[in-house]
Order: sequence, then C-alpha cells, then structure tokens
Amino acid sequence: MKFVTFVTKTGEQCAGWLDGDRVIDMDVMSSGVLPNTMIDFLQQSERYLPLALRLQHLEPEADAVYPLSEVRLCAPLPKPSSVRDFYAFEQHVKTARAQRGLEMIPEWYEVPAFYFSNSHCIVGPDEPVKRPAKCQWLDYELEIACVIGKKGSNIKADEADDYIFGYCIMNDWSARDIQRHEVKIGLGPAKGKDFATSIGPYLVTKDELKPYCCGDRYRLAMTAAVNGRVLSQGNFHDIYYTFGQMIERASEDAVLHPGDVIGSGTVGTGCILELTEKVHRWLEPGDVVQLEITGLGVLRNAIEGGK
Amino acid sequence: MKFVTFVTKTGEQCAGWLDGDRVIDMDVMSSGVLPNTMIDFLQQSERYLPLALRLQHLEPEADAVYPLSEVRLCAPLPKPSSVRDFYAFEQHVKTARAQRGLEMIPEWYEVPAFYFSNSHCIVGPDEPVKRPAKCQWLDYELEIACVIGKKGSNIKADEADDYIFGYCIMNDWSARDIQRHEVKIGLGPAKGKDFATSIGPYLVTKDELKPYCCGDRYRLAMTAAVNGRVLSQGNFHDIYYTFGQMIERASEDAVLHPGDVIGSGTVGTGCILELTEKVHRWLEPGDVVQLEITGLGVLRNAIEGGK
Repeated sequence: MKFVTFVTKTGEQCAGWLDGDRVIDMDVMSSGVLPNTMIDFLQQSERYLPLALRLQHLEPEADAVYPLSEVRLCAPLPKPSSVRDFYAFEQHVKTARAQRGLEMIPEWYEVPAFYFSNSHCIVGPDEPVKRPAKCQWLDYELEIACVIGKKGSNIKADEADDYIFGYCIMNDWSARDIQRHEVKIGLGPAKGKDFATSIGPYLVTKDELKPYCCGDRYRLAMTAAVNGRVLSQGNFHDIYYTFGQMIERASEDAVLHPGDVIGSGTVGTGCILELTEKVHRWLEPGDVVQLEITGLGVLRNAIEGGK
Repeated sequence: MKFVTFVTKTGEQCAGWLDGDRVIDMDVMSSGVLPNTMIDFLQQSERYLPLALRLQHLEPEADAVYPLSEVRLCAPLPKPSSVRDFYAFEQHVKTARAQRGLEMIPEWYEVPAFYFSNSHCIVGPDEPVKRPAKCQWLDYELEIACVIGKKGSNIKADEADDYIFGYCIMNDWSARDIQRHEVKIGLGPAKGKDFATSIGPYLVTKDELKPYCCGDRYRLAMTAAVNGRVLSQGNFHDIYYTFGQMIERASEDAVLHPGDVIGSGTVGTGCILELTEKVHRWLEPGDVVQLEITGLGVLRNAIEGGK
C-alpha cells in the first residue's frame, strides 16, 4: 500500500492511501476506526495495518474518495517523531571526501554512523524549498528512508525488518558552505541541514518492495534530475550497511519509536558535491530537483524564488 | 515559578508547580483550564502562564495539593519537542581538546555550534541512568538548558529572551569511548550521547533568575559532585555565547517550537574528560552524580546497577 497525507480543497489535512488516481481517506473509509494522521496510524500500525490491507479491496463510499488531482499531497509523515540520517553508501563518503582532498576514514567501515537531524523541517512533494539566507552552495541529496512502525530497543540486524513499516524517498537538502564551516567545530552537521528535509510522495509498505528483493537488500534504481537533466544515477542495492545494520546501531541502548525516520545517506553520485561544479553549479532559486526511486515514486521540489 | 511534572501514588502523571514542600496539580487547581502536561502548557504559555502566576497566590483546594514527599518528580518536560546541545563554554572546548593533544578551533569563535540530540531519552531527577553496554568511559556533563515557550524563526539575539520560557539543569551523559570513535567519521556525536539526557528537577521561569542577572547573562554557580565529592565548579556567567546568540543561530532559517530544549554545553571543569582520570575514574554502576545550579535546584542520578 502507498500511504499518504493530503489536504483537501476545503483545507482539511487527512491521512489515507493511494488507489490508482484516487486517494482514500482512511478515517472515513473505516467509519472512524482508523485515525486521521499517519503518526497516530504508525503508533498502532500492528493493529491498524491489517485493517487497512482489507479495506483497500472494498469499493469506498463517495465521501471517502478524492480524485488525486483535487488534493494536495503533503509529506506522508509531516511530523516524524525523529529523523536520523546515516552515511551508508561507501561511494558517497569516498567521493565527497576526495573532493576535499581527504582520504577514506577507517572507522567508517567499523560502525554505521548517523546524526540526528531536525524533525520539524519536513517538506512534502511539490512544496518549495527556501535556500538559507547565508547559503550560496545549495545541494540536494538522493536518499531512501525507512520509517519505523514498532517500538523497540537493542534490535538485532536480522530482526530489524519487523520494525520497519515502509520506505519513502528522502532529499536531505544541504547548505554545503554552512556545513563545511560548522563541521570543523566537531559536532557534525546541524545548520547545514536543518532548514529542510523532503520526504514522499508516499510511504510504501515493505510488502510492495518484495519483487525487488535480492538477499538482504532491494534492487531499486535511484536517480536525481535538476531541471530535467539527470545528474545522479545509483542503486539502493549498492548500499554498504543495510537498514537492518543501521537499525541495530540506532537502537543500541536507545528506544526507536513508531514514526522515527531513518535516512540511508546519499547514494553514490547522488549530490552536486560529488559531481563537482564542473558538472553542475550549486542550486539556485527556480531550479527544480526531481528524485525518483523504483517503487517509491517521484519526489519533486522547486527552489523558492524566481531565477 | 518552578514547574514540575510528577507521578502520584496512584501512578497518574500530572503537571503543576512547586509550592514550598507541596506540589500543586495545575489542571485541578484551574478547574481544567490548564492542561495536564508541560508540553501542552508550553504550547500556549503566553495564555497559560499569566493564569498560573495568579493561581499560585490562592490557597489550593485539597484535591489539587500533594505533599512533595508523596509524589515522584519526573523530568519537568518528559518529552521535549527537540533537544539541541551547544558548545558555548570556551574553557570546556579548550580543555577537552587539549586532553587529546588538539589545538583550539578558530571556527569555534565565529559561530555558536550545536548538534541535535535524542529527544526520546530524557531522564528525570533521581531516575537511574544505565551505562551503555559497550561503554567503559561513562561521563557526566554539567550544563544549563533553556526551554522555548514561543514559536519563532530568524530570532535576533537581543529579542531572544521573549522566546525563553525558563531554565533547568541538564546532564548530557556521555559515553566517551563511543563518542571518540564515532566523531572521527565526521557526523558528530550520536551514540555517544543518545542513551540518556537528564533534566530537572524543575523548570524555573526566567523571572526567578532576575536577582542573579548581570548584563546579558546570569551569575549562577554550577557544581557537580560524584558520590558527595565536588569535582566541577563553574559559573554560568563565564559562558562565551549567550542563550540569545544560541537562539539566533538555532532559529536561522529554521523554526523553534515551544518545548524545544537548548543545552548550553558543558561549563569549564564540568566533566571527567576535562579533569582527566587522574582526578577521577570514569563513572561506574552505583556512582551518584549530583549537579547543582544556583536557583535551579539539584539534579541527582545514580548509575544503574550495584558497584
């Protein structure tokens, strides 16, 4: 299933699922049994998902259905309970460091590393992204995120799939000039990342990715295009650390909660920093960035302001 | 006023304020006008605080009062909407780096830097803290935190006081061995910090600190003791960046929300890392760490497990 959060023409925010070119309001469709936000749905997903899986096969009554063209899709989870972003693709780390004349870090191979990002700056599909006032080097990052559907701690990698509700595309917008300056202080990226993180357009349940399964990962093509020109091409299968390993790391001595978002880190070639400015200049107002991942749809955002 | 979150003998969690050796349930005291969680109170603090300030002078009815000895104080804000931790005391940064043979970072003087920490690992006064399984170098960090009471973005330092609801003591527990390893990867501290952050024992409104005001900061003595032996002694007045400057930085191109917690970073001498192991070994199960700050009370936690 593809879960969505959407706003109707009357301005009401609802949660539901995609059914072809229609959107189903889960609260109305279930006569009020299912909640009207995705965070509430996730908090009891073990109870609610089986019901949703059944209801999707019934013809909805008219008041539960909206044509997709008549609603505005928001981020599927507008207020995650947290956002962690990992650094799990080897090529990205290698290339991004090489651009700065740095060698690969031996510790990177020992543990999957992450930082906590700002869970209050979530941007949805087709919502504009504002370049930070002091930023001249605005970049996108092509990532995949998993969303936690079950509370747990000290989860082992081989049990982690039970805790994953589903997946979505993630764009970890980055102000490279601000980031480069602040990371020298040793606390990692914060202002370089905390102005916007896009997720969407929908939250896809893991069963939908089964056709792409290959061992402990999925074969999913990942691309990014700026103003229609494809700049980044990678595959989720090339990830070094699996989401299972990331969840094991994140949940060591800490509790994961339903609605926690875990980003993979950028796929190899998945940002301008890696491509260098020779291939493409930094993003500017008016640019449109479109990320696409097999099975997860297309996540498009324009940089706010005219060219 | 000193706001608290507490659990009654019947296991109910309530919010209220301290009145000498009594605790007042704000929801009952206000006949249901004030909410029963501090996060809900903060979300409308401009409306609710004036009412609370008046109600504190009335003699409460019996059902709104609990003897302090008959309740258990929790973290005043058990679920902050976010936790940012800054690095605003020069002496701490200098000494902690010197211990590793590193020089001071020039960029530190240019911007107040922070990282996002785990807002789901809040520990209250007298709650035990568990040492992470892989940690041998457990440390405390003596900090002061401010709590945001009003939504805002791009807040200037000299307007920031309007956005501060109050202050509390913060202990940013640190697994130094895990932290030292992970920071080499360049994303800052995460697993070195995400297992526990203590705040409390109460959230003190800023008007209570006026007697200690001195220019743009407060003179507040800060001490930490382990098993009754004072190891750290500093003063909030020595901070390099004010909370105003930290709020200006945090809110640049980002929204601050009521219930956001902003930690100051460790005061000079405020952790074992700075003192070196010659002065005190790393913390072990059974150790009791007690932080005290003028006007903000005492925050005490024991490390879980027998010696």
